[in-house]
Amino acid sequence: MHRILMRSLVIDVPGDVTKREREFWTAALAARGRPAKVYPEYYVLEDGATPNAVALQDIGTSPARVHFDIESDDVEAEVSRLVGLGAELVERHEEWVVLRDPAGLLFCVTDGEGDEFAAGAREVG
Amino acid sequence: MHRILMRSLVIDVPGDVTKREREFWTAALAARGRPAKVYPEYYVLEDGATPNAVALQDIGTSPARVHFDIESDDVEAEVSRLVGLGAELVERHEEWVVLRDPAGLLFCVTDGEGDEFAAGAREVG
Repeated sequence: MHRILMRSLVIDVPGDVTKREREFWTAALAARGRPAKVYPEYYVLEDGATPNAVALQDIGTSPARVHFDIESDDVEAEVSRLVGLGAELVERHEEWVVLRDPAGLLFCVTDGEGDEFAAGAREVG
Repeated sequence: MHRILMRSLVIDVPGDVTKREREFWTAALAARGRPAKVYPEYYVLEDGATPNAVALQDIGTSPARVHFDIESDDVEAEVSRLVGLGAELVERHEEWVVLRDPAGLLFCVTDGEGDEFAAGAREVG
């Protein structure tokens, strides 16, 4: 058994609307926006009117989309479980794994940590 | 002033993968799935491993996407605020209003109600 929580929401936007989109969603969610510490393509919206951890990602020339992350205390076990349910493994990054759902939507599995993960996570497996 | 909370997440899927997608996300989020009471194109995932209210919507022949809803205790005031921030009004339905963000992504504004709205909503305006 391991634990999961789907909590992070990412708004993926083309580079040419990144600035406008960051300003819009920061104001829309009454959040505080800041560049992410490690990955410069990410912009984090903190303390917004939502239970989600929200970020915007600059995805260059790809079309805009929304994706979410499933956090887990055992990323490999969770990836295996989701592939067993019908997801397709797309690519592995150092801190997350990209999967595709049966309808073709991308989503990620990433480490679950912190108080909100501990409080909200559910056992699966 | 009015209150908002971005909480509902909708996975929009073409009709030909609706059944498979419902089964996948019900299991992935360890949720209980059921058809929505009023709108037959919606399928509700209850009590899943997420702070979001999650539903799947059959969108016919359109490509799969993810969208979210901003709940409000004053839908008209919130729509006006978001249009003022740069969103475009797309269409009005009886229970929600569809908007488009600066990157072209669709999202909705809908009534906020219930304990989770009351607990999480934030004043804006």
